[in-house]
Amino acid sequence: MPRNKQVLLDNRPQGEATPSNFKLVTTQTPALQDGQVLVKHHFMSLDPYMRGRMNDAKSYAQPQPLGQVMQGGTAGEVVESRSAKFQPGDQVVGMGGWQEYSVVDADKPGMLRRVDTTHVPLSHYLGAVGMPGVTAWYGLVKIIQPKEGETVVVSAASGAVGSALGALAKARGLRAVGIAGGADKCRYVTEELGFDACVDYKQHADAASLSKALKEACPNGIDGYFENVGGMVMDAVMMRMNAFGRIALCGMIAGYDGKPIPMAYPQLLLTNRLMLQGFIVSEHMEVWPEALKELGTLVASGKLRPRESVAVGLESAPEAFLGMLKGRNFGKQLVKLA
Amino acid sequence: MPRNKQVLLDNRPQGEATPSNFKLVTTQTPALQDGQVLVKHHFMSLDPYMRGRMNDAKSYAQPQPLGQVMQGGTAGEVVESRSAKFQPGDQVVGMGGWQEYSVVDADKPGMLRRVDTTHVPLSHYLGAVGMPGVTAWYGLVKIIQPKEGETVVVSAASGAVGSALGALAKARGLRAVGIAGGADKCRYVTEELGFDACVDYKQHADAASLSKALKEACPNGIDGYFENVGGMVMDAVMMRMNAFGRIALCGMIAGYDGKPIPMAYPQLLLTNRLMLQGFIVSEHMEVWPEALKELGTLVASGKLRPRESVAVGLESAPEAFLGMLKGRNFGKQLVKLA
Repeated sequence: MPRNKQVLLDNRPQGEATPSNFKLVTTQTPALQDGQVLVKHHFMSLDPYMRGRMNDAKSYAQPQPLGQVMQGGTAGEVVESRSAKFQPGDQVVGMGGWQEYSVVDADKPGMLRRVDTTHVPLSHYLGAVGMPGVTAWYGLVKIIQPKEGETVVVSAASGAVGSALGALAKARGLRAVGIAGGADKCRYVTEELGFDACVDYKQHADAASLSKALKEACPNGIDGYFENVGGMVMDAVMMRMNAFGRIALCGMIAGYDGKPIPMAYPQLLLTNRLMLQGFIVSEHMEVWPEALKELGTLVASGKLRPRESVAVGLESAPEAFLGMLKGRNFGKQLVKLA
Repeated sequence: MPRNKQVLLDNRPQGEATPSNFKLVTTQTPALQDGQVLVKHHFMSLDPYMRGRMNDAKSYAQPQPLGQVMQGGTAGEVVESRSAKFQPGDQVVGMGGWQEYSVVDADKPGMLRRVDTTHVPLSHYLGAVGMPGVTAWYGLVKIIQPKEGETVVVSAASGAVGSALGALAKARGLRAVGIAGGADKCRYVTEELGFDACVDYKQHADAASLSKALKEACPNGIDGYFENVGGMVMDAVMMRMNAFGRIALCGMIAGYDGKPIPMAYPQLLLTNRLMLQGFIVSEHMEVWPEALKELGTLVASGKLRPRESVAVGLESAPEAFLGMLKGRNFGKQLVKLA
């Protein structure tokens, strides 16, 4: 069996996460048992939710266990199989974690999914045609439930979730407005992703200033908001929401370092009769087939052109992950392993 | 036509509202035109929402116009009629405002409602069997949508909305827990209103302490929350909410003086996948008949025994209103005019 490099969570962050929270080790992959397959990872996914799980706090998921391989999505190839369901050479997506290989109980439902890379590159199954894409789909279709002609706003618009949100919104005849950090990202959001407008939050020192820019970008106000970041950005959007607006709350990256980030104007939830729903997409598996079908078609037809930031080699994962939390990535953050 | 004393909004509050914001005047009621009736007010309702409307801010309703009679609910008797729909002697509920008489376009739908005082005292049509009661009903039935055995919490539990919420919750087999200010109110909430427990927020200096008391009162956590006040009380409840909890956001009295009161831990909305819905009951007229029927039955059968604070005479309205905003009332705040 091959040698397997792994990244473990060595200790929990005190405030901001640092490289010293992680530990790189090398092991041997164990021999397969009946029903198992060995997957060689080509790509692993780095996602903001992982930061939340590094804390030992009550949250939607169990905390990432200490001393264990960092959990996360992976895309790769079956290299050995003792399952009748998978053959060597199959391209598959699963939750292999931060390591080069994983041994998977492939006969259990939901552990591994075979994917077709004829029209969609393998890596996109970790982004636009994977968990981030379905997250955007669920928030837009099931929570925001937009009506044609309405305006939807998404924060972190150039990222994996945001870019899918934009394509899904445009496919529904909506005005799609992004919020992103920096001129390059904003240009990508409007020129490549087809958003109608993008506001660069880095140009604004406070919520009032950002809110003014949003007013220009959203002349009819904001009907739906897909929230990835929290903090000042959320405050600014809330100031522009129309009566009966809907907020899909998917992430609050601004608060992941443990310091609570207050919501400045909760009374707007009342005065504008807003609906806000927190969610985590893995609790809504029933929508995945429908969502993945639409997202796959959008990518295959070129209507959704996701961008990727690709770090190379397992060793690069911690730095790439910490950089992503600071917005240094551009599009979906991946680590290429093979 | 009779002389009519009125309270006008003379100027808008700068921060806290004061008696000098109001002005007492005396006029003559105008002669009736076809389709109009003259109503002599027996009771007028004082409600927290009125404070919000005194500000000249974007809100769910148009601001209360300056120099005009303060708007609000009234219960009284038709004393003169030029409408075929109402006869002198009819007991009616409407939006007559802070004055002794009102002239009402009674032929227009929704302006005036005839009520039956055989089993329900007239004043209760401004409280438990009126707008506050329907507010509780809508929040519980349509937003919280409780399942049997769940725990619901309401702030300002001894008030008009809170007391109705408790009775409606108990009728559905729920654990009902109130939050109120002071031992007397808490005793009333448990002993007279039938709540399972009541927490006195005045015994707690911060959200963490209040939250600890809520943990004892809600051993299975909180599934539904009906919010009347905002601020520290809301923060404390949110810390105890179960996954997939629902918050009906009806009032944020803590923020009515214009200073925004932040929500301290919005990330709990995400980690617990909470749903929060702001609402105003007058936008949901379709539920009123069903809600009023249930509320009327609860009052007539003695299962809901609403308490009232009754100030006497129109002149007392401003002080009674300002006292209510500070929680000095006990139960529904009314002014008796006749």
